[in-house]
Amino acid sequence: MISMMKQECESRISRLQSVMKEQSINAFLVTQNIDIYYFTGSMQTGYLFIPQSEEPVFFVKRSVARAIEEACVPVLPLGSFRQFAETLAAQFPSVWPLSSAEGSIAPAVIATEYDVLPVQQYERLQAVLPANVTWTDGSLLLRELRMVKSPWEVERIMTAARAAHHAMEQAAAYVRPGMMELELIAHIEYAFRMQGHIGMIRMRGYNQELVTGMVASGEAGAEPTYFDGPAGGRGLTPASPQGSSRKVIAVNEPILVDIGCCIDGYVIDQTRTIVIGKLDDELQQAYEASEAILRAAEERLKPGIVCETLYADALQMARNYGLSDHFMGFGADQVRFLGHGIGMEIDEWPVLARGFKQPLQAGMVIAIEPKFTFPGRGVVGIEDTYLITETGYKRLTTAPGGLTSIPAPQ
Amino acid sequence: MISMMKQECESRISRLQSVMKEQSINAFLVTQNIDIYYFTGSMQTGYLFIPQSEEPVFFVKRSVARAIEEACVPVLPLGSFRQFAETLAAQFPSVWPLSSAEGSIAPAVIATEYDVLPVQQYERLQAVLPANVTWTDGSLLLRELRMVKSPWEVERIMTAARAAHHAMEQAAAYVRPGMMELELIAHIEYAFRMQGHIGMIRMRGYNQELVTGMVASGEAGAEPTYFDGPAGGRGLTPASPQGSSRKVIAVNEPILVDIGCCIDGYVIDQTRTIVIGKLDDELQQAYEASEAILRAAEERLKPGIVCETLYADALQMARNYGLSDHFMGFGADQVRFLGHGIGMEIDEWPVLARGFKQPLQAGMVIAIEPKFTFPGRGVVGIEDTYLITETGYKRLTTAPGGLTSIPAPQ
Repeated sequence: MISMMKQECESRISRLQSVMKEQSINAFLVTQNIDIYYFTGSMQTGYLFIPQSEEPVFFVKRSVARAIEEACVPVLPLGSFRQFAETLAAQFPSVWPLSSAEGSIAPAVIATEYDVLPVQQYERLQAVLPANVTWTDGSLLLRELRMVKSPWEVERIMTAARAAHHAMEQAAAYVRPGMMELELIAHIEYAFRMQGHIGMIRMRGYNQELVTGMVASGEAGAEPTYFDGPAGGRGLTPASPQGSSRKVIAVNEPILVDIGCCIDGYVIDQTRTIVIGKLDDELQQAYEASEAILRAAEERLKPGIVCETLYADALQMARNYGLSDHFMGFGADQVRFLGHGIGMEIDEWPVLARGFKQPLQAGMVIAIEPKFTFPGRGVVGIEDTYLITETGYKRLTTAPGGLTSIPAPQ
Repeated sequence: MISMMKQECESRISRLQSVMKEQSINAFLVTQNIDIYYFTGSMQTGYLFIPQSEEPVFFVKRSVARAIEEACVPVLPLGSFRQFAETLAAQFPSVWPLSSAEGSIAPAVIATEYDVLPVQQYERLQAVLPANVTWTDGSLLLRELRMVKSPWEVERIMTAARAAHHAMEQAAAYVRPGMMELELIAHIEYAFRMQGHIGMIRMRGYNQELVTGMVASGEAGAEPTYFDGPAGGRGLTPASPQGSSRKVIAVNEPILVDIGCCIDGYVIDQTRTIVIGKLDDELQQAYEASEAILRAAEERLKPGIVCETLYADALQMARNYGLSDHFMGFGADQVRFLGHGIGMEIDEWPVLARGFKQPLQAGMVIAIEPKFTFPGRGVVGIEDTYLITETGYKRLTTAPGGLTSIPAPQ
């Protein structure tokens, strides 16, 4: 079962190796499940060792049998972790002339993922590999590499987008006043799961968690939370303080349906606002402002535009509407971005935020999510996911835009 | 909304502080969402600073408003991360006499969670806190503290156990030949979610993931995987290589239903084996052996018994049955344990495994899961979760044991 085209892996590895050359990194030791999958097509446990110019080897802890079936790179059993230095020296005598038995020892620069690797595992690696290794943080490099998607990856994101379109239709057909948010999100999750959603959305950020997003209605949607997004949601208890709650959905309040799924490793992100009955004028205008901000962003969406410019322009538009206090959260709980890269994780690069001075490039995939929060009343907004193309963009989410208005039951 | 009794937090903090005194740790800087919740009753983002003998302070990044509502300890805004040292010095002048403006600087030992904290975040903490801080790994200490549960915690685990009982009944009523594993697990997940499951089961281990466990039938259940458990399951694709798959459930094969949920932060773990029709003699005997091993473990389950003894005895029983090659996985993919602690995470301490020389203590909660794997044919077994009491144990899972045999359709 080789699910990933061998040329995908080869191209990714070769892109990594050329950056490694530029940065004088001798080897990349890849440790995280998603990163390992990205370069090998397998998500088994172990260490992927990528030298600057030779073929990598995936040293697998478990399951070796499964990794051999799946991986596009050579697989070897990791064996004794204490002997990892010797195992590497035997496989890479030219790039890894570090065996202390050899006498003169060349120093090597090894990169790994400081943004996700726990300190304990890092210290164990430092202890078993030679003391003259210079360790360096390769997080930035990997995030930059992964932010430009191949057509193969975009195809998977589009499959997830179709699932989100379907799930949104299911939600709109199922929602009714008197139903708990929890009941509606469970219905959506069932729809997602039956289409092959893996059951959770992966996040790279420490302490960040996501299942499928949320249904958040009225004041519950506007409750602030730790979650690194514009709308948190009340959640079920303080032990799960985000997303859908047991609040009962009512008429004439915004129902934010901010959902995504992960199919064959790739993620989509999409938000629509539903109302049963009618929003009051202020919320209606805020919803329309969110659509206008999204349309204005779309107009500028093409290679070359600087990420933070898109955020600054959106913030300026919110100010012009007199809504800047409500934009992307409220008060102290506002987040300072307009959108984020997505791929295998939902918090990828680039981020449309102040400080992100890089220009958009063709192949980036970005979710843009203008939203407005009104404490005690709710959150309104819209979110679509876009591929940046050579000349502009392609919207990957296929669900129709606009406020979904459902007549209130008589 | 204060969901956790204040005395729970106080008792946990005071237990931690007495170990800190014994180990001459001046302060514990708690960073992980679960650990922060354990001591504060809130899961917002920030740093919980616990000095050896004063009251802790939760320095919150986001959401301060929500943390103030939820937390049982004083909450302050984290403010500028670069000034964290000054913020600490202002709050803890006696235990934190570290301001470099003060001239003579006492060294302090600060513990944090090396088992989960990413290197990048650790290095940032090192950079903003004074250079003469001695950092130490507090993982072991926290794992040991958290492995003994309070009655308040056990009550929550029992709520999750009732949900698992109900979900298993739903599964047994719903399963039929011709249905995909995915369809059955989606049905179970819906049942769990409607009872308040947060949507995922938290794991502490790097690269480990879990939604609700799995339904795994016949040969798909026996496929090895990276997952740190006796049965991996085929999963949906190599990008999600564990758990339920699109394999169609057939008659006369074992259907392993290894499921759990997380309600109000606490987790349960339970396995039952279903067959539609009849298992062949060898699988039937292996199933009976798993029950016999569980009963034998129960007989010895009380404070004082050493963890690794329970594993060694189970392994010996498997040998006596002539089944040791199949015990807890097959061949190179066997795992070397019989059970594991559970609480807020499903991979807590203690582990019933070689090398765990500590005796069981009253208050520990442990899932015990003897299973047998037959490549190409399936996995059979049983798993229950137990509270260790002063005199023995109490089984927390309430679903009836035994093989669930369903007549094959005519």
